[in-house]
Amino acid sequence: MKVSRLYMVTGNRHKVEEAKEILERYGVELVQAEARKLEIQSESLEEIALTAARYAYLQLRKPLIVEDAGLFIEALNGFPGPYSSYVYKKIGVEGVLKLMEGVGDRRACFKAAVAYVAPGVERVFTGEVCGRIAREARGSRGFGFDPIFVPEGESRTFAEMSVEEKNRYSHRARAFKRLGEWIVREWWSMRSNSEG
Amino acid sequence: MKVSRLYMVTGNRHKVEEAKEILERYGVELVQAEARKLEIQSESLEEIALTAARYAYLQLRKPLIVEDAGLFIEALNGFPGPYSSYVYKKIGVEGVLKLMEGVGDRRACFKAAVAYVAPGVERVFTGEVCGRIAREARGSRGFGFDPIFVPEGESRTFAEMSVEEKNRYSHRARAFKRLGEWIVREWWSMRSNSEG
Repeated sequence: MKVSRLYMVTGNRHKVEEAKEILERYGVELVQAEARKLEIQSESLEEIALTAARYAYLQLRKPLIVEDAGLFIEALNGFPGPYSSYVYKKIGVEGVLKLMEGVGDRRACFKAAVAYVAPGVERVFTGEVCGRIAREARGSRGFGFDPIFVPEGESRTFAEMSVEEKNRYSHRARAFKRLGEWIVREWWSMRSNSEG
Repeated sequence: MKVSRLYMVTGNRHKVEEAKEILERYGVELVQAEARKLEIQSESLEEIALTAARYAYLQLRKPLIVEDAGLFIEALNGFPGPYSSYVYKKIGVEGVLKLMEGVGDRRACFKAAVAYVAPGVERVFTGEVCGRIAREARGSRGFGFDPIFVPEGESRTFAEMSVEEKNRYSHRARAFKRLGEWIVREWWSMRSNSEG
């Protein structure tokens, strides 16, 4: 399988690690890239990721992706949503657990959007995993709100799983699988066109 | 005094009302204007307001201002800060009161940044008012977190005050006063130059 190189614009090495593990299955070599980031305020992860990817593309002029993700808690009307990393930095998992004290409805979803921009093409792939907010923080792997999120059908939090285990469920893994499948299809159709 | 017309890009009529009350003292006529808004994610209100004002100026090509403000709570590391309106919409004053349950340090500041963009000129004016987070919500005036903010030297919350009373203290009023003073100075210096 042909190896395509793809640049990921992010300062978060955990995200690169998780994405790499998925994309290499599709013959894609992921490389972390630096660019000035334009991150807009929006309730749409797709819009945030796509705007950032377009802006990064103007600087790098290479096929690249930008990923954005957030934790959407049902009982908090979707808070912290697209501002999850800011909220994590300010009030942490303890703050969110405090907001959830005495709240019976623990449903929450992690969502991710991966925007791909290359010459003449723009695509956004999304992924989602639903589950519940744990009663207390558990585990030390992953990052952000991983210690308080338990995916459906599991009893462990994301922070109690290895990267490979987390990727079996995760929103980010789902979005990256869709990207990987699309890249493979594109490559095959380009190959058959050039051979046709 | 010459009346200058200035456009304010916002969807929040409360902000226009508060700003109008200040700016008319300086001979400035404030008009609410519509434009597509580019609001970036940043911990700096100045940067958010200036970027939005530049973007609006590209559309309107008239002297305009964009204001951004937030409530910065000491014990929550500055949360909700620039994301105050999003946080208000999602978890409300009740959510913030819950985060502050059992917290002795109630110190907080409201901050505002007003960015002015006109042909060949860009300026940002800031204002701040410090005080404390009330133990419970009081009052029905104003908007956002006004019902839980008590400015230093007062016992009432912002939501228990009229626009005129709030403007005696408020972060927004302070930023707008600085803008008003600057506009008056600019106008006098332009007038003396043209007469000199």
